[in-house]
Amino acid sequence: MQTSKKSKRPAAETPKGFRDYFGAEVTARTEMLRKAAEVFERFGFQALETSAVENLDALGKFLPDVDRPNEGVFAWKEDDGWSALRYDLTAPLARVAAQYRNDLPSPYRRYAIGPVWRNEKPGPGRFRQFYQCDADTVGSSSAAADAEMCLLAGEVLEAVGIQRGEYVMRVNDRRVLDGALEAAGIVGVHGEKQSAAQRGIVLRAMDKLDRIGPEGVAALLGKGRRDESGDYTEGAGLSAGQIDVVMAFLDAGCADVADTLSELASVVKGSGTGAEGIRDLIRIADLLFHQGFGPDRLRIDPSVVRGLEYYTGPVLEAELVSDVPDGRGRRKRLGSVAGGGRYDGLVRRFTGQDVPATGVSIGVDRILAALGEAELSAASNDGPVVVTVMDRNRMHDYMAMAAELREAGIPAEVFLGNARNFGRQMKYADQRNSPAAVIQGTEERKKGVVQVKDLRLGAQIARTATHEEWKKRPSQFEVPRGELVAGVRRLLENPTS
Amino acid sequence: MQTSKKSKRPAAETPKGFRDYFGAEVTARTEMLRKAAEVFERFGFQALETSAVENLDALGKFLPDVDRPNEGVFAWKEDDGWSALRYDLTAPLARVAAQYRNDLPSPYRRYAIGPVWRNEKPGPGRFRQFYQCDADTVGSSSAAADAEMCLLAGEVLEAVGIQRGEYVMRVNDRRVLDGALEAAGIVGVHGEKQSAAQRGIVLRAMDKLDRIGPEGVAALLGKGRRDESGDYTEGAGLSAGQIDVVMAFLDAGCADVADTLSELASVVKGSGTGAEGIRDLIRIADLLFHQGFGPDRLRIDPSVVRGLEYYTGPVLEAELVSDVPDGRGRRKRLGSVAGGGRYDGLVRRFTGQDVPATGVSIGVDRILAALGEAELSAASNDGPVVVTVMDRNRMHDYMAMAAELREAGIPAEVFLGNARNFGRQMKYADQRNSPAAVIQGTEERKKGVVQVKDLRLGAQIARTATHEEWKKRPSQFEVPRGELVAGVRRLLENPTS
Repeated sequence: MQTSKKSKRPAAETPKGFRDYFGAEVTARTEMLRKAAEVFERFGFQALETSAVENLDALGKFLPDVDRPNEGVFAWKEDDGWSALRYDLTAPLARVAAQYRNDLPSPYRRYAIGPVWRNEKPGPGRFRQFYQCDADTVGSSSAAADAEMCLLAGEVLEAVGIQRGEYVMRVNDRRVLDGALEAAGIVGVHGEKQSAAQRGIVLRAMDKLDRIGPEGVAALLGKGRRDESGDYTEGAGLSAGQIDVVMAFLDAGCADVADTLSELASVVKGSGTGAEGIRDLIRIADLLFHQGFGPDRLRIDPSVVRGLEYYTGPVLEAELVSDVPDGRGRRKRLGSVAGGGRYDGLVRRFTGQDVPATGVSIGVDRILAALGEAELSAASNDGPVVVTVMDRNRMHDYMAMAAELREAGIPAEVFLGNARNFGRQMKYADQRNSPAAVIQGTEERKKGVVQVKDLRLGAQIARTATHEEWKKRPSQFEVPRGELVAGVRRLLENPTS
Repeated sequence: MQTSKKSKRPAAETPKGFRDYFGAEVTARTEMLRKAAEVFERFGFQALETSAVENLDALGKFLPDVDRPNEGVFAWKEDDGWSALRYDLTAPLARVAAQYRNDLPSPYRRYAIGPVWRNEKPGPGRFRQFYQCDADTVGSSSAAADAEMCLLAGEVLEAVGIQRGEYVMRVNDRRVLDGALEAAGIVGVHGEKQSAAQRGIVLRAMDKLDRIGPEGVAALLGKGRRDESGDYTEGAGLSAGQIDVVMAFLDAGCADVADTLSELASVVKGSGTGAEGIRDLIRIADLLFHQGFGPDRLRIDPSVVRGLEYYTGPVLEAELVSDVPDGRGRRKRLGSVAGGGRYDGLVRRFTGQDVPATGVSIGVDRILAALGEAELSAASNDGPVVVTVMDRNRMHDYMAMAAELREAGIPAEVFLGNARNFGRQMKYADQRNSPAAVIQGTEERKKGVVQVKDLRLGAQIARTATHEEWKKRPSQFEVPRGELVAGVRRLLENPTS
């Protein structure tokens, strides 16, 4: 028994919580990231690529919604300590900013693009490896740096295909949140440990407004809440009066930026922290308005909390408001597609000194999902032209044809499977989504011609054309061997004529 | 003591054996991989991206030069088994080919680009994470598929900047190697376990010809060898006669392809396996010659072994022969920049069935090193234009200037650090390698102008120009505010006039 188990074959399975990406799923993402990188470069950010692996103690414990140390991280023990896969691109940035602080320009403006890993229970659409795409300015306390993150995120979104008017930038400030909690007597500026934990519960409750509505938030602020699945979440234990203040705060957001700011100012009245937050929000809104980033796409929104513990000032979130067509005429809503904020404490872990920093992260997978098949089908341009093999002794002729096509910039390959069955060659071309097949058997060889077969025509005609049109359009035509490239190009440029 | 240790700050250090890549180091690689992907697509290969993590048992034990199981791999235990970071892109391909075998086209032609991880002792220039860039055809036993790998590798090398004539493709066949061993009586076609281990030692010894020379190889084929460091490597224990056969085999390689093939045929005489290998080498050479891939860059070379155990047929290696200038007029030699071969057994681990497969891997880091600073400095185009901050209350004006420049396609940013010290702003621009700074103080504001400061001039002049020339070229000029973009563009296009 033992032995048979030992010699058992491994299962050919994608590891649980991970996925494989094929063809256009890869190229569409690559193309999107290339466009984002172009915008980052244009804004003066410089590329940084750190390794996937970090020393565990350098990563810190900044994962959202995680209380236990190292939870959520893939980690293993090496001879000289624990290693872990990075769970975001910010923790490695903090390490780099500390490590190279004497050599890097200040401010240090970098972008980073790459996969990150979370050791979490996978869910639908939620994977243990996914891409992040971040830009950060380390070493600037200026509200202009925060405002720039909004501009930058907006330009990236537009560069990758989300139109002006399809997104809004929702901006808040952690200090305004804290001011409100202070005003409600929930937590002091120098809150003790207990109230810090309570603050965490309150922030997480506020962050859920979108998902669970005002009643749900109020319940979580009070005793607690049982969700649909029956799970019970302990509440923050606030008094009814305190809950009212928080709910009034959440309710202060409205379309008019100036109104929202003055309403918020009255909620946080008396809190110095809150006033600082309001002051920076006013600066950010003012700078953005001057850049044409106006009320049509800017909201001051007190319900923007952002899950991460480490934010210390302005926080922002870009949300899709109008829905983007999915390529089949349907529309979907997708929520947040970019987010970020100011975090002045991350480098302190290494150096003991606060370093002001602010950044934004582009939600790559969310955007790809939003643009969906529309983007994918544009990227999934046809497969290669397939040069069929009619005579295995003339492989070099077929390879020469494929090479000529490639030379002309047309993706092409010779069929390399078992060539005896012509139907299998056609099936292969079909699976590859090939626009055309090139055929030269003995007859064609003698005549010095090749057949070019239009493989897109069938599917296209079936969808759109009448039978008359179908008859008028030959799905295959002959060209002299010397005109192979011209013939294929003619077909590609005008497939239905 | 315990507590103080506990509260100790983490070290800001790149994990041992890993490295950080900055700016042009990242963008040069990205650009190279983009060019490689373009060639792959043109040849009809389709992108595949699997996750970094695989189930350990799915990875198998195919690392080069590794005898113990799991050695060389980063692995950790999860609740449901062991996970590991992939050590190459071929093992995940085998998993994918098995897992999706009913849905994928056959042959399945995919390319993959991404980092892989090796848990090895790091050495100079040898890191635990590095990029691989592979194309493979799974499901084709045709020698044309092997020949195509040579063509493909050649086109990728030329696409990324290695000229025709600067590389040769060295091709061999594992069956020819085995035929030689068989002819020498070292291992039978159905060799027992002991001779299989001996075969491994012999192959590894042959693989070291470049590094340790014929005497070194002969020693490893015999009793063993002590290297310069004093380490002793056990030999294969061959007899003197057997060693002669192997050395004659290694010596059979010469510039003429046909001569080499006939010489090899005589060495492997009597071995059916060897004859099959020779037959395929002849086919490959013939197909390549027909595609213009001739003796100027093709060698049949019996010393090409390739470290990996899993190869079963043709193996190939692209080597730089002429040296590539490194941008400072020096030249370096770099050896192998691409390699691959046929491996018909990889999918069997999962399905029990042999699937013919062949592939090539582009040595990304080697090529980047070869092209070196030349490529990097071309990619490290100047940093952003820096708009300096002369009056913090006019941040929105400066942001508008940067936005205008960006709009015109010129990377630009506002200085976001502490603006009080103008010198610090200039130092920042210098560190960012900025081509120009834009300055508008109170005076300029009143006059409706901006100053454009040429930051490249200083360094350039210092290197190349006479004092007379220096005086003739103003390093700073004034333009009307409305002509900011035109002024900066003029400077960028013609920095020394």
